[in-house]
Amino acid sequence: MTQDGCVFCAIARGQAEASVVYEDASVLAFMDLQPVTPGHLLVIPKAHSAGLGDLPEEAGIQVWRAAHRLAGALRASGLRCEGVNLFLADGEAAFQEVFHVHLHVFPRFAGDPFRIDADWRVHERDRLDRTAAAVRKGLAASRAAGGPGIMPA
Amino acid sequence: MTQDGCVFCAIARGQAEASVVYEDASVLAFMDLQPVTPGHLLVIPKAHSAGLGDLPEEAGIQVWRAAHRLAGALRASGLRCEGVNLFLADGEAAFQEVFHVHLHVFPRFAGDPFRIDADWRVHERDRLDRTAAAVRKGLAASRAAGGPGIMPA
Repeated sequence: MTQDGCVFCAIARGQAEASVVYEDASVLAFMDLQPVTPGHLLVIPKAHSAGLGDLPEEAGIQVWRAAHRLAGALRASGLRCEGVNLFLADGEAAFQEVFHVHLHVFPRFAGDPFRIDADWRVHERDRLDRTAAAVRKGLAASRAAGGPGIMPA
Repeated sequence: MTQDGCVFCAIARGQAEASVVYEDASVLAFMDLQPVTPGHLLVIPKAHSAGLGDLPEEAGIQVWRAAHRLAGALRASGLRCEGVNLFLADGEAAFQEVFHVHLHVFPRFAGDPFRIDADWRVHERDRLDRTAAAVRKGLAASRAAGGPGIMPA
Protein backbone atom coordinates (compact mmCIF):
# COMPACT_ATOMS: atom_id res chain seq x y z
CA MET A 1 0.00 0.00 0.00
CA THR A 2 2.87 2.42 0.71
CA GLN A 3 6.37 2.66 -0.72
CA ASP A 4 9.52 3.34 1.29
CA GLY A 5 11.14 6.61 0.38
CA CYS A 6 8.01 8.04 -1.27
CA VAL A 7 7.34 11.48 0.21
CA PHE A 8 3.62 11.38 -0.64
CA CYS A 9 3.27 7.99 1.08
CA ALA A 10 4.97 9.56 4.12
CA ILE A 11 2.45 12.42 4.03
CA ALA A 12 -0.43 9.93 3.66
CA ARG A 13 0.87 8.06 6.74
CA GLY A 14 1.10 11.32 8.68
CA GLN A 15 4.89 10.95 8.90
CA ALA A 16 5.76 14.04 6.85
CA GLU A 17 4.49 17.59 7.20
CA ALA A 18 1.72 18.83 4.93
CA SER A 19 -0.97 21.50 4.95
CA VAL A 20 -3.96 19.20 4.55
CA VAL A 21 -7.25 20.46 3.13
CA TYR A 22 -9.20 17.21 2.69
CA GLU A 23 -8.95 13.57 3.70
CA ASP A 24 -11.15 10.50 3.38
CA ALA A 25 -10.58 6.74 3.35
CA SER A 26 -8.94 6.70 -0.07
CA VAL A 27 -7.57 10.15 -0.88
CA LEU A 28 -5.69 13.05 0.68
CA ALA A 29 -5.40 16.65 -0.54
CA PHE A 30 -2.77 19.13 0.63
CA MET A 31 -1.08 22.32 -0.48
CA ASP A 32 1.68 22.18 -3.11
CA LEU A 33 4.97 23.48 -1.66
CA GLN A 34 5.66 25.45 -4.85
CA PRO A 35 2.26 26.85 -5.72
CA VAL A 36 1.61 28.26 -9.17
CA THR A 37 -0.90 30.50 -7.36
CA PRO A 38 -1.97 30.62 -3.69
CA GLY A 39 -4.42 27.74 -3.21
CA HIS A 40 -2.57 25.30 -5.49
CA LEU A 41 -3.24 21.85 -4.05
CA LEU A 42 -2.55 18.23 -4.86
CA VAL A 43 -5.01 15.34 -4.60
CA ILE A 44 -3.38 11.93 -4.14
CA PRO A 45 -4.63 8.38 -3.66
CA LYS A 46 -3.50 7.19 -0.21
CA ALA A 47 -2.37 3.84 -1.61
CA HIS A 48 0.81 4.12 -3.64
CA SER A 49 0.55 4.13 -7.43
CA ALA A 50 3.44 5.52 -9.43
CA GLY A 51 1.33 6.57 -12.39
CA LEU A 52 -1.94 6.16 -14.26
CA GLY A 53 -0.88 2.74 -15.53
CA ASP A 54 -0.84 1.15 -12.08
CA LEU A 55 -3.62 3.31 -10.57
CA PRO A 56 -6.75 1.23 -9.90
CA GLU A 57 -9.73 2.67 -11.74
CA GLU A 58 -11.73 3.18 -8.55
CA ALA A 59 -8.84 5.02 -6.85
CA GLY A 60 -8.62 7.35 -9.84
CA ILE A 61 -12.32 8.10 -9.60
CA GLN A 62 -11.96 9.02 -5.92
CA VAL A 63 -9.08 11.39 -6.79
CA TRP A 64 -11.16 13.04 -9.51
CA ARG A 65 -14.22 13.36 -7.28
CA ALA A 66 -12.20 15.13 -4.57
CA ALA A 67 -10.55 17.40 -7.16
CA HIS A 68 -13.94 18.36 -8.60
CA ARG A 69 -15.21 19.28 -5.14
CA LEU A 70 -11.99 21.12 -4.27
CA ALA A 71 -12.23 23.18 -7.46
CA GLY A 72 -15.54 24.42 -6.09
CA ALA A 73 -13.90 24.99 -2.71
CA LEU A 74 -11.23 27.20 -4.28
CA ARG A 75 -13.93 29.34 -5.88
CA ALA A 76 -15.64 29.68 -2.48
CA SER A 77 -12.42 30.17 -0.49
CA GLY A 78 -11.95 33.92 -0.70
CA LEU A 79 -8.54 33.27 -2.33
CA ARG A 80 -8.14 34.95 -5.69
CA CYS A 81 -9.84 32.50 -8.07
CA GLU A 82 -11.39 33.47 -11.41
CA GLY A 83 -10.77 30.05 -12.93
CA VAL A 84 -9.29 26.66 -12.05
CA ASN A 85 -6.88 24.31 -13.79
CA LEU A 86 -6.57 20.58 -13.21
CA PHE A 87 -3.27 19.10 -14.33
CA LEU A 88 -1.80 15.63 -14.07
CA ALA A 89 1.69 14.61 -15.19
CA ASP A 90 2.11 10.91 -15.90
CA GLY A 91 5.75 10.07 -16.55
CA GLU A 92 8.99 12.04 -16.57
CA ALA A 93 8.45 13.15 -20.18
CA ALA A 94 5.15 14.69 -19.00
CA PHE A 95 6.92 16.64 -16.19
CA GLN A 96 6.07 14.20 -13.38
CA GLU A 97 8.57 14.75 -10.54
CA VAL A 98 7.11 12.75 -7.62
CA PHE A 99 6.27 9.22 -8.69
CA HIS A 100 3.08 8.87 -6.67
CA VAL A 101 0.00 9.87 -8.69
CA HIS A 102 -1.12 13.44 -7.93
CA LEU A 103 -3.71 15.68 -9.54
CA HIS A 104 -2.91 19.39 -9.37
CA VAL A 105 -5.81 21.76 -8.71
CA PHE A 106 -4.97 25.46 -8.78
CA PRO A 107 -6.78 28.78 -8.89
CA ARG A 108 -6.22 31.11 -11.79
CA PHE A 109 -6.74 34.83 -12.19
CA ALA A 110 -6.03 37.46 -14.82
CA GLY A 111 -2.35 38.35 -14.75
CA ASP A 112 -1.19 35.30 -12.77
CA PRO A 113 2.21 33.85 -13.71
CA PHE A 114 1.09 30.46 -15.12
CA ARG A 115 1.76 30.00 -18.83
CA ILE A 116 1.53 27.11 -21.26
CA ASP A 117 3.18 27.04 -24.63
CA ALA A 118 3.09 24.74 -27.64
CA ASP A 119 2.85 24.75 -31.42
CA TRP A 120 -0.88 25.41 -31.83
CA ARG A 121 -1.08 24.76 -35.59
CA VAL A 122 -4.38 23.26 -36.85
CA HIS A 123 -3.89 19.73 -38.21
CA GLU A 124 -5.75 18.55 -41.32
CA ARG A 125 -8.66 16.15 -41.01
CA ASP A 126 -6.96 13.22 -42.76
CA ARG A 127 -4.03 13.43 -40.38
CA LEU A 128 -6.39 13.64 -37.37
CA ASP A 129 -8.35 10.65 -38.69
CA ARG A 130 -5.16 8.57 -39.01
CA THR A 131 -4.15 9.52 -35.49
CA ALA A 132 -7.64 8.66 -34.21
CA ALA A 133 -7.36 5.23 -35.84
CA ALA A 134 -4.07 4.64 -33.98
CA VAL A 135 -5.68 5.66 -30.66
CA ARG A 136 -8.67 3.35 -31.25
CA LYS A 137 -6.23 0.51 -31.98
CA GLY A 138 -4.35 1.39 -28.78
CA LEU A 139 -7.63 1.35 -26.84
CA ALA A 140 -8.46 -2.13 -28.11
CA ALA A 141 -4.92 -3.34 -27.29
CA SER A 142 -5.04 -1.75 -23.85
CA ARG A 143 -8.43 -3.33 -23.12
CA ALA A 144 -7.18 -6.74 -24.25
CA ALA A 145 -4.33 -6.33 -21.76
CA GLY A 146 -6.79 -5.51 -18.95
CA GLY A 147 -6.63 -1.73 -19.30
CA PRO A 148 -4.81 0.84 -17.21
CA GLY A 149 -5.64 0.50 -13.58
CA ILE A 150 -8.04 -2.38 -14.18
CA MET A 151 -6.93 -4.91 -11.64
CA PRO A 152 -6.89 -8.58 -12.65
CA ALA A 153 -9.84 -10.48 -11.16
CA MET B 1 -29.00 18.69 -22.64
CA THR B 2 -27.41 20.55 -25.57
CA GLN B 3 -26.81 24.24 -26.17
CA ASP B 4 -27.37 26.05 -29.45
CA GLY B 5 -24.16 27.38 -30.93
CA CYS B 6 -21.91 25.11 -28.84
CA VAL B 7 -19.49 23.34 -31.19
CA PHE B 8 -18.93 20.43 -28.79
CA CYS B 9 -22.70 19.89 -28.48
CA ALA B 10 -22.82 19.83 -32.30
CA ILE B 11 -20.06 17.18 -32.32
CA ALA B 12 -21.89 15.18 -29.64
CA ARG B 13 -25.05 15.27 -31.79
CA GLY B 14 -23.06 14.13 -34.83
CA GLN B 15 -23.77 17.46 -36.56
CA ALA B 16 -20.15 18.64 -36.74
CA GLU B 17 -17.09 16.82 -37.99
CA ALA B 18 -14.73 15.17 -35.51
CA SER B 19 -12.19 12.36 -35.45
CA VAL B 20 -13.82 10.24 -32.76
CA VAL B 21 -11.82 7.76 -30.69
CA TYR B 22 -14.36 6.72 -28.06
CA GLU B 23 -18.07 7.06 -27.36
CA ASP B 24 -20.49 5.72 -24.77
CA ALA B 25 -23.84 6.81 -23.36
CA SER B 26 -22.43 9.76 -21.42
CA VAL B 27 -19.08 10.79 -22.95
CA LEU B 28 -17.39 11.34 -26.28
CA ALA B 29 -13.65 11.57 -27.06
CA PHE B 30 -12.18 13.02 -30.24
CA MET B 31 -8.96 14.51 -31.54
CA ASP B 32 -8.07 18.13 -30.72
CA LEU B 33 -7.83 20.21 -33.92
CA GLN B 34 -4.69 21.92 -32.63
CA PRO B 35 -2.80 19.08 -31.00
CA VAL B 36 0.08 19.80 -28.66
CA THR B 37 1.42 16.43 -29.88
CA PRO B 38 -0.10 13.86 -32.29
CA GLY B 39 -2.67 11.91 -30.28
CA HIS B 40 -3.93 14.92 -28.30
CA LEU B 41 -7.59 14.22 -27.59
CA LEU B 42 -10.50 15.75 -25.70
CA VAL B 43 -12.98 13.91 -23.51
CA ILE B 44 -16.34 15.67 -23.11
CA PRO B 45 -19.62 14.90 -21.37
CA LYS B 46 -22.33 14.58 -24.03
CA ALA B 47 -24.72 16.70 -22.01
CA HIS B 48 -23.79 20.37 -22.01
CA SER B 49 -22.02 21.78 -18.97
CA ALA B 50 -20.08 25.02 -19.34
CA GLY B 51 -17.63 24.28 -16.55
CA LEU B 52 -16.91 22.27 -13.42
CA GLY B 53 -19.44 24.28 -11.42
CA ASP B 54 -22.42 23.04 -13.42
CA LEU B 55 -21.00 19.59 -14.26
CA PRO B 56 -22.94 16.84 -12.44
CA GLU B 57 -20.59 14.79 -10.28
CA GLU B 58 -21.45 11.54 -12.05
CA ALA B 59 -20.81 13.08 -15.50
CA GLY B 60 -17.39 14.23 -14.32
CA ILE B 61 -16.57 10.73 -13.13
CA GLN B 62 -17.47 9.30 -16.54
CA VAL B 63 -15.19 11.87 -18.22
CA TRP B 64 -12.32 10.97 -15.88
CA ARG B 65 -12.83 7.22 -16.36
CA ALA B 66 -12.66 7.55 -20.16
CA ALA B 67 -9.58 9.80 -19.89
CA HIS B 68 -7.83 7.28 -17.64
CA ARG B 69 -8.49 4.49 -20.15
CA LEU B 70 -7.51 6.69 -23.10
CA ALA B 71 -4.20 7.56 -21.42
CA GLY B 72 -3.48 3.82 -21.51
CA ALA B 73 -4.65 3.70 -25.12
CA LEU B 74 -2.17 6.43 -26.10
CA ARG B 75 0.67 4.41 -24.57
CA ALA B 76 -0.46 1.34 -26.56
CA SER B 77 -1.18 3.26 -29.79
CA GLY B 78 2.20 3.20 -31.49
CA LEU B 79 2.14 7.02 -31.49
CA ARG B 80 5.14 8.60 -29.81
CA CYS B 81 4.18 8.51 -26.12
CA GLU B 82 6.68 8.47 -23.25
CA GLY B 83 4.28 10.19 -20.87
CA VAL B 84 0.77 11.62 -20.74
CA ASN B 85 -0.69 14.88 -19.46
CA LEU B 86 -4.27 15.48 -18.42
CA PHE B 87 -5.32 19.12 -18.42
CA LEU B 88 -8.61 20.85 -17.77
CA ALA B 89 -9.26 24.58 -18.06
CA ASP B 90 -12.24 25.84 -16.09
CA GLY B 91 -12.95 29.47 -16.87
CA GLU B 92 -11.45 32.05 -19.21
CA ALA B 93 -8.76 32.99 -16.67
CA ALA B 94 -7.70 29.31 -16.73
CA PHE B 95 -7.38 29.34 -20.56
CA GLN B 96 -10.80 27.76 -21.29
CA GLU B 97 -11.77 28.63 -24.86
CA VAL B 98 -14.77 26.38 -25.58
CA PHE B 99 -17.35 26.64 -22.83
CA HIS B 100 -18.36 22.98 -22.78
CA VAL B 101 -16.32 20.98 -20.24
CA HIS B 102 -13.41 19.10 -21.87
CA LEU B 103 -10.51 17.18 -20.42
CA HIS B 104 -7.35 17.24 -22.55
CA VAL B 105 -5.34 14.00 -22.77
CA PHE B 106 -2.11 14.22 -24.72
CA PRO B 107 1.02 12.15 -25.25
CA ARG B 108 4.38 13.57 -24.28
CA PHE B 109 7.90 12.71 -25.37
CA ALA B 110 11.38 14.09 -24.82
CA GLY B 111 11.87 17.19 -26.94
CA ASP B 112 8.18 17.80 -27.67
CA PRO B 113 7.07 21.46 -27.86
CA PHE B 114 4.79 21.59 -24.78
CA ARG B 115 6.04 23.87 -22.01
CA ILE B 116 4.61 25.19 -18.78
CA ASP B 117 5.98 28.13 -16.89
CA ALA B 118 5.31 29.72 -13.52
CA ASP B 119 7.07 31.16 -10.49
CA TRP B 120 8.12 27.94 -8.74
CA ARG B 121 9.25 29.51 -5.46
CA VAL B 122 8.76 27.37 -2.32
CA HIS B 123 6.23 28.92 0.05
CA GLU B 124 6.74 28.82 3.82
CA ARG B 125 4.68 26.49 5.97
CA ASP B 126 2.77 29.18 7.86
CA ARG B 127 1.66 30.72 4.57
CA LEU B 128 0.62 27.28 3.22
CA ASP B 129 -1.27 26.58 6.45
CA ARG B 130 -3.19 29.85 6.17
CA THR B 131 -4.05 29.07 2.55
CA ALA B 132 -5.15 25.54 3.52
CA ALA B 133 -7.45 27.03 6.16
CA ALA B 134 -9.07 29.24 3.48
CA VAL B 135 -9.58 26.20 1.21
CA ARG B 136 -11.13 24.17 4.04
CA LYS B 137 -13.47 27.06 4.73
CA GLY B 138 -14.31 27.20 1.01
CA LEU B 139 -14.99 23.46 1.02
CA ALA B 140 -17.43 23.82 3.90
CA ALA B 141 -19.15 26.77 2.18
CA SER B 142 -19.30 24.91 -1.12
CA ARG B 143 -20.79 21.84 0.56
CA ALA B 144 -23.37 23.96 2.35
CA ALA B 145 -24.35 25.33 -1.07
CA GLY B 146 -24.74 21.81 -2.47
CA GLY B 147 -21.25 21.53 -3.93
CA PRO B 148 -20.09 21.83 -7.51
CA GLY B 149 -21.95 19.48 -9.75
CA ILE B 150 -23.98 18.06 -6.90
CA MET B 151 -27.50 18.18 -8.23
CA PRO B 152 -30.30 19.13 -5.87
CA ALA B 153 -32.34 16.07 -4.84
